[in-house]
Amino acid sequence: MSISEFIELNRKSLLDDLFSLLRIQSISAKADHHQQMLDCANRWKELLLQGGVDSVDIYPTEGNPIVFAKKDINPQMPTVMVYGHYDVMPAEPLELWKTEPFEPQIIDGHIIGRGADDDKGQSFMHYAAFKYMMQEHCLPCNIHFLLEGEEEIGSPNLEAFCTTHKELLKADIILVSDTSMLSADKPSITTGLRGLAYWEIEVSSANRDLHSGIFGGAVANPINELCKIIARLQDEKGRILVPHFYDDVDIVSDSERQLIAATPFDAEEYKSSLGIDELHGEEGYSTLERTGIRPTLDLCGIWGGYTGEGSKTVLPAKAYAKLSCRLVPHQSFDRIAPLMQNYIAQIAPSYVKVKVTPLHGAEAYVCPINLPAYKAAEKAYEEVFGKRPLPVRRGGSIGVVAVFEKVLGIKSILMGFGLESDQIHSPNENYPLYMWKNGIKTIVAFYKNLTL
Amino acid sequence: MSISEFIELNRKSLLDDLFSLLRIQSISAKADHHQQMLDCANRWKELLLQGGVDSVDIYPTEGNPIVFAKKDINPQMPTVMVYGHYDVMPAEPLELWKTEPFEPQIIDGHIIGRGADDDKGQSFMHYAAFKYMMQEHCLPCNIHFLLEGEEEIGSPNLEAFCTTHKELLKADIILVSDTSMLSADKPSITTGLRGLAYWEIEVSSANRDLHSGIFGGAVANPINELCKIIARLQDEKGRILVPHFYDDVDIVSDSERQLIAATPFDAEEYKSSLGIDELHGEEGYSTLERTGIRPTLDLCGIWGGYTGEGSKTVLPAKAYAKLSCRLVPHQSFDRIAPLMQNYIAQIAPSYVKVKVTPLHGAEAYVCPINLPAYKAAEKAYEEVFGKRPLPVRRGGSIGVVAVFEKVLGIKSILMGFGLESDQIHSPNENYPLYMWKNGIKTIVAFYKNLTL
Repeated sequence: MSISEFIELNRKSLLDDLFSLLRIQSISAKADHHQQMLDCANRWKELLLQGGVDSVDIYPTEGNPIVFAKKDINPQMPTVMVYGHYDVMPAEPLELWKTEPFEPQIIDGHIIGRGADDDKGQSFMHYAAFKYMMQEHCLPCNIHFLLEGEEEIGSPNLEAFCTTHKELLKADIILVSDTSMLSADKPSITTGLRGLAYWEIEVSSANRDLHSGIFGGAVANPINELCKIIARLQDEKGRILVPHFYDDVDIVSDSERQLIAATPFDAEEYKSSLGIDELHGEEGYSTLERTGIRPTLDLCGIWGGYTGEGSKTVLPAKAYAKLSCRLVPHQSFDRIAPLMQNYIAQIAPSYVKVKVTPLHGAEAYVCPINLPAYKAAEKAYEEVFGKRPLPVRRGGSIGVVAVFEKVLGIKSILMGFGLESDQIHSPNENYPLYMWKNGIKTIVAFYKNLTL
Repeated sequence: MSISEFIELNRKSLLDDLFSLLRIQSISAKADHHQQMLDCANRWKELLLQGGVDSVDIYPTEGNPIVFAKKDINPQMPTVMVYGHYDVMPAEPLELWKTEPFEPQIIDGHIIGRGADDDKGQSFMHYAAFKYMMQEHCLPCNIHFLLEGEEEIGSPNLEAFCTTHKELLKADIILVSDTSMLSADKPSITTGLRGLAYWEIEVSSANRDLHSGIFGGAVANPINELCKIIARLQDEKGRILVPHFYDDVDIVSDSERQLIAATPFDAEEYKSSLGIDELHGEEGYSTLERTGIRPTLDLCGIWGGYTGEGSKTVLPAKAYAKLSCRLVPHQSFDRIAPLMQNYIAQIAPSYVKVKVTPLHGAEAYVCPINLPAYKAAEKAYEEVFGKRPLPVRRGGSIGVVAVFEKVLGIKSILMGFGLESDQIHSPNENYPLYMWKNGIKTIVAFYKNLTL
């Protein structure tokens, strides 16, 4: 039986199984959803056992448990570890959903519901492919499944789990389906993800809010000073002015830049979908380079003083900002965080107090396109989508792949089959059935092509 | 009965009456507080009638009503018009108040609550002095009361009211108690007030909040751009960079600068009361000059993006700021407002949309110290405080006094009895009872000394 025949024959039961996961409100951001997290982990355990794994263990962590399953056909054979996450984003704002977020439905050929793509829908494709290969006795290697329940809150317990379970997690390659393609007819594989550094800045002046008429002009204004500091973080060419910030930036080869330049990109469509007249970023780089291979600096929030209606005059005591940098491969969060702190301390004027607190960090990741597993994925996409997939560096951050590389020394292939129209993290999340089916087929083709 | 005896005898009822005003949340900046504004105007009407005025009228305006009361003892006698405002600033941030802002209390000899000083507490002193003079039959002239409900939002309807009620508002001098003295033992009378210009800035980029990983670096960040604009409003010497901003600035004579230099001012005490290590302002000017005779630029508020706990990444669609300038005599708000708008339009980058909306304006004011009414006030302060009060130019703005001069041709005497420690416009606004009592006594002494 071909994989296409298998999907058609088992369409209903496969979708029923997926829907059983989608119905569970496994929202990791909500502390009172602990039972739903356990329910979802247990439901995965049942499915994996039905699919034919040898064993499934649910490992408790300080947060939500990790599901780990094994199917070892031969210890001498290579091992593929599939990573996915069973937690989902909150569904709010609920009023914008056209259906119930946790009552999955098929409408116009799309699975609709929270997690339809991210990541229940995508990780389920690996389960379906595994079930097929078990039934057809064509599994060419060992498969392990690692499913965590905290990806949407930054995987706070995954690194510790990897560190203490290195032997268990040994594998030759990791497959992750948690990213998107350029579009349905432009297959692509994500080969780079940016890292992240995140700080909060607090600028303080007087010990209380002051009357701006009585004290204005004589006492430093923390908003004015915060803005001046922020204005000095980048020059007019969009270069970040923190000394040594670019020291470790991966210099992308001309040939890779040519590949990026060949990536289909319609600037007019991009601008019109965002409602902007002009693109803006670091001088000397294209839009795809700016979001893919260059580090960036974005204020994510700012606040201070009077922010209500009308014209209250006040010289505020404090002002705050949330500052983030996306990092590229080889830039380490641990190195960048103090560089930023030192630079701001150096440019901050003596007449205000400035505190910079690092809040969060994630390392960048790059997948070399000459890896045998990458080649197998590339061939699989080409067989199913009829076009060779483009290697694409994306701007987002999936901290876990950097953790796998750092702690386990294993590369991940980001075999994502999402589309930008899937509305992940937003109301009306959906996943087209044809992408879901093509994803399953591509995964099966990957195993067929794999030579590790 | 002396005024001191009168205050002691009527202490409770006077404070009860004041507290009845302080309990009303007459916050003019909040559009949904219209009923509270009416309540406060009506409460003033009741009090003034109790105090013995001939008539009280509540004049509707396009905003909050104006309360006007008369006590005419003889049309041939001079008329003093008392101006005050019954609106107060918003009480936010509420969490910093140690008591309920609209539940006034006496704690350690201080009246605590929003409006305790500004301006319910201060304008009430005129009511108490009037009540005393009525009881003792020693009122030497006609008294009119003009109480408005929009001072804290820039008196948008007062000028039109003055223009259409010139006959009604005829007076020889206007008394305003809405300013501070240098300190409790350094009596002073404000002879100059700065004007005010106030704008809201809105910077917009994309049509929605974006994922900072996917779009960061390629799409302009409105917070980054807002900060850059703000940083370009002043140079490193504290000079405002708006072209022609200083064209009309009143050049203060050397002799007046010498008077300012002779004003008692303890920089160490000033810094220590504010909890700052260093003063900061325009190069080449002293602190009293910076707040008295020089225009200034202060951000009163800023907001945009994620301002909650932790590290949410977002590339926000919009960012906002509230910008204010204090103006000095001869600088006209009508001229400065478009200068700022034009300058920001000129420095704003083309890749974001920038909107600058003038919200509020007030002209500066100067009171000549040789006016007979000023002399009467000076003598009254000396009698009560034991020291001749210093004429001082202050940084705050009371736009109405410039309006009175322009439209009615009447000078105002700024008989303020606030202290810098009163925390007006801030949490825990308070007013020392001894200042309140001395203020009432000084006002009574003023009428005794008045020869118009």
